[in-house]
Amino acid sequence: MNYRMIVRMLSITLRIVALLMLPALVIAMCCHENAAVLAFAVTILLMLFISLATNIFKPQKTTFYAREGFVITALVWIVLSAVGALPFYLSGSIKSYVDCLFETISGFTTTGASILSEVESLPYSILYWRSFTHWVGGMGVLVFLLAVSTYAGGKGDSMFIMRAESPGPQVSKLVPRTMQTARILYLIYTGMTVLEIILLLLGGMPIFDAVTLSFGTAGTGGFAVKNDSIMSYSPYLQWVITVFMILFGVNFSLYYLILLRSFGRVWRDEELRFYLSVILVSVIIITLCVLPSLNGNVSDSVRHAAFQVASIMTTTGYCTLDYEIWPQLCHVLLMTLMVIGACAGSTGGGVKCSRILMLFKSLRVETQRLLHPNMIRPVKMDGKAVPDSTIRTLYAYFGVYCMIALSTVLLLSLEGFTFETSVSAMLACLNNIGPGFNVVGPAANYGSFSVFSKLLLSFNMLAGRLEIFPILLLFAPGIWTRAPKQKTHTF
Amino acid sequence: MNYRMIVRMLSITLRIVALLMLPALVIAMCCHENAAVLAFAVTILLMLFISLATNIFKPQKTTFYAREGFVITALVWIVLSAVGALPFYLSGSIKSYVDCLFETISGFTTTGASILSEVESLPYSILYWRSFTHWVGGMGVLVFLLAVSTYAGGKGDSMFIMRAESPGPQVSKLVPRTMQTARILYLIYTGMTVLEIILLLLGGMPIFDAVTLSFGTAGTGGFAVKNDSIMSYSPYLQWVITVFMILFGVNFSLYYLILLRSFGRVWRDEELRFYLSVILVSVIIITLCVLPSLNGNVSDSVRHAAFQVASIMTTTGYCTLDYEIWPQLCHVLLMTLMVIGACAGSTGGGVKCSRILMLFKSLRVETQRLLHPNMIRPVKMDGKAVPDSTIRTLYAYFGVYCMIALSTVLLLSLEGFTFETSVSAMLACLNNIGPGFNVVGPAANYGSFSVFSKLLLSFNMLAGRLEIFPILLLFAPGIWTRAPKQKTHTF
Repeated sequence: MNYRMIVRMLSITLRIVALLMLPALVIAMCCHENAAVLAFAVTILLMLFISLATNIFKPQKTTFYAREGFVITALVWIVLSAVGALPFYLSGSIKSYVDCLFETISGFTTTGASILSEVESLPYSILYWRSFTHWVGGMGVLVFLLAVSTYAGGKGDSMFIMRAESPGPQVSKLVPRTMQTARILYLIYTGMTVLEIILLLLGGMPIFDAVTLSFGTAGTGGFAVKNDSIMSYSPYLQWVITVFMILFGVNFSLYYLILLRSFGRVWRDEELRFYLSVILVSVIIITLCVLPSLNGNVSDSVRHAAFQVASIMTTTGYCTLDYEIWPQLCHVLLMTLMVIGACAGSTGGGVKCSRILMLFKSLRVETQRLLHPNMIRPVKMDGKAVPDSTIRTLYAYFGVYCMIALSTVLLLSLEGFTFETSVSAMLACLNNIGPGFNVVGPAANYGSFSVFSKLLLSFNMLAGRLEIFPILLLFAPGIWTRAPKQKTHTF
Repeated sequence: MNYRMIVRMLSITLRIVALLMLPALVIAMCCHENAAVLAFAVTILLMLFISLATNIFKPQKTTFYAREGFVITALVWIVLSAVGALPFYLSGSIKSYVDCLFETISGFTTTGASILSEVESLPYSILYWRSFTHWVGGMGVLVFLLAVSTYAGGKGDSMFIMRAESPGPQVSKLVPRTMQTARILYLIYTGMTVLEIILLLLGGMPIFDAVTLSFGTAGTGGFAVKNDSIMSYSPYLQWVITVFMILFGVNFSLYYLILLRSFGRVWRDEELRFYLSVILVSVIIITLCVLPSLNGNVSDSVRHAAFQVASIMTTTGYCTLDYEIWPQLCHVLLMTLMVIGACAGSTGGGVKCSRILMLFKSLRVETQRLLHPNMIRPVKMDGKAVPDSTIRTLYAYFGVYCMIALSTVLLLSLEGFTFETSVSAMLACLNNIGPGFNVVGPAANYGSFSVFSKLLLSFNMLAGRLEIFPILLLFAPGIWTRAPKQKTHTF
């Protein structure tokens, strides 16, 4: 294990977070929010000091191995959250540091689960920072970690980090050079965010709301700046957000293909078809379910159904109404969407559509093999055979996912809340959605959980965001010993 | 597909069921239960008539292929349940035929889920037949199907059926000849049942109760002859049943090893150790949870905790109290035990301890492979490497298990009951336990479900009992076409 390299990376991370916090400081100063000014200033200075202090450890080797990649990814997210939580704490906006940590992890992992019942009284700069964490976390800090690794002069394969961090079972570089890939993704991400801000402004939304809500949509996060989430905005604004949530749940590579005018490949993309089909079918079912409760108003029913399906499926977590009162079928359907999640390579969480699709296909092949044991037929995605090692990792992912889910529900049930509360809280955090049902429903929050449960759910958010393995491997025996057995390139 | 052979097997099945129904007829006659006498007599005559009528289709070939094995297994269970339900219907004990079918499938699959709120008023012969279905189903009709296959002069590999039907990921013959294996298992099964009857009689239990409850224990079924299940029996009787539930949840091969005095192999058996450890840990946790509600009475707490853990883990489903009132942690823990289930090669259901253990080990290997991609390390059970194909089938099993579970919960949620009701009803049926929580709790029954849900849960019981694949393959495209592609020996 290359410890010095890890320290160096964390040191650079701190410097970048300090940079990212500057706009919030500026807003605090403009709005004369004195407590927030002090909080941001102290945090920024502290980060810069630590960063400079740890800079004396010069790494002797700059090579990366798979496990360095995993460990760095996990540690960066933890350090990021620990320091990102300071402004909330120092400004007195949130009283307990564990709550601050929960809120920040929820922000950076783009979960959107909150312990706050009241957000409208918070300073603008704090609300801005809260939503901005979504935007930073949205691209999985992928971009800035890639930048870090290049800046640090790391000669190792920075694709390790990209693999560990980018959402989905397979990573494909759009263009040969990692750095260039990052830049393209970053441009698409920023461009779409700006487009959403403009469309929201055109609908008459105040600029502060437009910017923060766009951050939340782009990162598929879900922190809003009103206590009732998106409920009080006009139907036009709700539809704009619905469309952008769906757009941010699509694999970003497809946007690059659109820029290259490869429309055929986009159209034939199996994951996209699956993603849109699931959304369509779910919207139809939920519309039919909620029609009676909305007095048979079709346009309202479609709007709320589409908004909620998009919000949950893309793991954003905004709400236009209290879906808690919907029939039980909607609850279970929404929980299913929580698990499925968005497309791989998007900013969304969950298991990801491509994994679900690959699982279906692989199960079909396995079932047929029971009848024809000597049959050799690979699982195919988009016409290409999926290597066996990918399928094996896929199954391992599902297995570990289920174990974490089960353990979490067991431990959460110590709280004594309903079974639906425990299960939906776990699903909402492990899949980075935010709101669940009952005690953690759309009209409620995570404030009633104990400190232990909050930390447990924070772990779930991190595990979900990092696709489980990096955060899990922190606890693997032998990961912290010095000599790696071999240099590795695939997993 | 060898249709004539399938018809022949079903024809023989009917004759055997007619034979198995005779004791119930005798009991009905002795107790002067006229409606039941008529019901059993008509059913028996009908079965014999159909059996003789279908006997004219002589199979030209008697060879078996994997898919014939799957199809026959599934059909035998369906036919068995369809005719086994007739006495309930014809005697007027249960009004609707769907309810009769549910009760009989629940009996043969050793689930023990009932639609009856009141059993004490039923005729003795009907109660006897209800419990006897557990005993017949307990060994998976393995034994009598093996007998059938030999009787039919089938020259194919009857291990196909054994593989399809016997519980657990791997089938091992105790002795080279299948028929002899069956006989040994059958003797152990009968011997242990008789032993339990004797011990219950010694505790002062009436002979009818002792016999029927022993049938329910041996088959890990759970139908009782009192409305309050096992609640009103003495602590001694409850302890006897606890011990025998645990014993019937153990792999029967181990008893054969004990007969052979290979105590070392039994002691080192990893599945047994896992099974007993899970029971021990769960009993301790639940004892601590229920102590306050039982006024700190340790011996009562341990007894109820041990009984309920054994009952759920072995998928029997007897109750000594309404565990619905226990803390939420106990609910989730018991649901977890429902999934884990008993040992492979026992009469119990669930996923089986060996599968869970194998999954754990395989996930460990896969996680390590992320760090060391070129590492080749097989999953080992009892010191022997498990073949890759077994691991693949294991994952496929889990995948399909989860899909069935999810679909069932989605469809059950149409009823509008609580989430815990839907989930626990699914778990209790798919894992062949019986009682769940809330609407289907230990003090309640499945009577409040719709016809659709009852049929859905019946499918779950069959799928669970037959380890999913045989019942699923009935719906596989191409299974009913005539020519099999190749003769197969493993899956």
